[in-house]
Amino acid sequence: MEQVKVVLVSPRNPLNIGAAARAMSNFGFFHLRLVNAYDVAYAEARSAVNAAEVLRASKQFSTVGEAVADCTLVVGTTSLGPRALKHAIRRLETAGRLLREHPGNTAILFGSEKFGLSNDDLSHCHWLTRIPTREAHHSMNLGQAVAVCLYELIRREDEESRQPAAARPASSGEVERIAARAVECLRDAGYIQELTAESTETKIRRLFHRTNILETDARVWLGMFRQILWKLRNPSCGDGTE
Amino acid sequence: MEQVKVVLVSPRNPLNIGAAARAMSNFGFFHLRLVNAYDVAYAEARSAVNAAEVLRASKQFSTVGEAVADCTLVVGTTSLGPRALKHAIRRLETAGRLLREHPGNTAILFGSEKFGLSNDDLSHCHWLTRIPTREAHHSMNLGQAVAVCLYELIRREDEESRQPAAARPASSGEVERIAARAVECLRDAGYIQELTAESTETKIRRLFHRTNILETDARVWLGMFRQILWKLRNPSCGDGTE
Repeated sequence: MEQVKVVLVSPRNPLNIGAAARAMSNFGFFHLRLVNAYDVAYAEARSAVNAAEVLRASKQFSTVGEAVADCTLVVGTTSLGPRALKHAIRRLETAGRLLREHPGNTAILFGSEKFGLSNDDLSHCHWLTRIPTREAHHSMNLGQAVAVCLYELIRREDEESRQPAAARPASSGEVERIAARAVECLRDAGYIQELTAESTETKIRRLFHRTNILETDARVWLGMFRQILWKLRNPSCGDGTE
Repeated sequence: MEQVKVVLVSPRNPLNIGAAARAMSNFGFFHLRLVNAYDVAYAEARSAVNAAEVLRASKQFSTVGEAVADCTLVVGTTSLGPRALKHAIRRLETAGRLLREHPGNTAILFGSEKFGLSNDDLSHCHWLTRIPTREAHHSMNLGQAVAVCLYELIRREDEESRQPAAARPASSGEVERIAARAVECLRDAGYIQELTAESTETKIRRLFHRTNILETDARVWLGMFRQILWKLRNPSCGDGTE
């Protein structure tokens, strides 16, 4: 991430500069470069909650050439389809991987809100990448486009889902105890008929096993059925907790 | 995409509502639901360039329960790490896949800019997903978070990179002709020494072959060397084009 320079070419809206900086900070990118930015927009880049660090360290340039001079891979972003462009376009996942694996400084260029990157800007790019927006509405907000591209850069195929300890499923034995308690309740409540008792009980147990009961919720389930059972057997009593 | 309902819970900033609608339109999602939105913010959702369609079709609800009543999978978004939460958290790629594959209406919930989803909001969720922002600055802008999540939903592993026809590499034969012309120039220019001529010429040809010359640029390369060669052989003449 240290190698990646995010280059905004001719940004006009201070909110977008701020939003770009914020997404950079969210995803751990700290090298923001602005080409031909309006001074007013730069100064007013307000929406960047907590992104002050990125904005403070950002650098201004007057041409794209100067902004990417120390980079050995320069990637342009576009919202246009491949038919409109002469450059090679790589899909965003591929772009993310190539930028991550590149042995040297890289730049990812975003054009102005209104016009995107010009042909002159594009001439500095080795190739382009495109966020797969739909053709009928392809143009993205600048801050959102930066967020999506940087997300793709930090996304790791091999990172695992993490389940907090509290969300582990209850063991089969625990589920069995809960189901047994439920069956007791249902028997007392007259839900289970003598003749079909066995198959009904099996169905109920299966129902509980296919329900995703969490380890931390097992005691609550047991407690609920225990209380219901108590009330079924002591209908005229109070709340049973004494 | 038709099944997915994007639910913004208590959004405060009209720019964010607009930005969420715009990202939805970019990525082809048309069901926006707002829970407990400030009327003023809703009315002022201005930044949504071309997202009027999404905003016009959006629906308002007063509780999360009503907003997700017709959904059979409800996924909450959070910027917090797993340690802070009791819910199961799935990484965003997994969430995207499960939402795409779900046989029925789904909802993806985004909390307010300031507080995220409340415990009560979370109680409606089957599980949560998290955009992998860094711990030191985990909280994303709402519009950007919506954009990143929807991008992940439409992202397809199997979609191929598309190379516009114009970006096809030049054939080996064309590159060979260019290299040969270059060698002629360099010989005339005294770059190639008699003794090492063969190895130098091989090096030059290899250089051209490992350079990524595009099909559409082949004629330009040939023309450049032809012109240089002409000038080398006619040093006192004008521009050689007569």
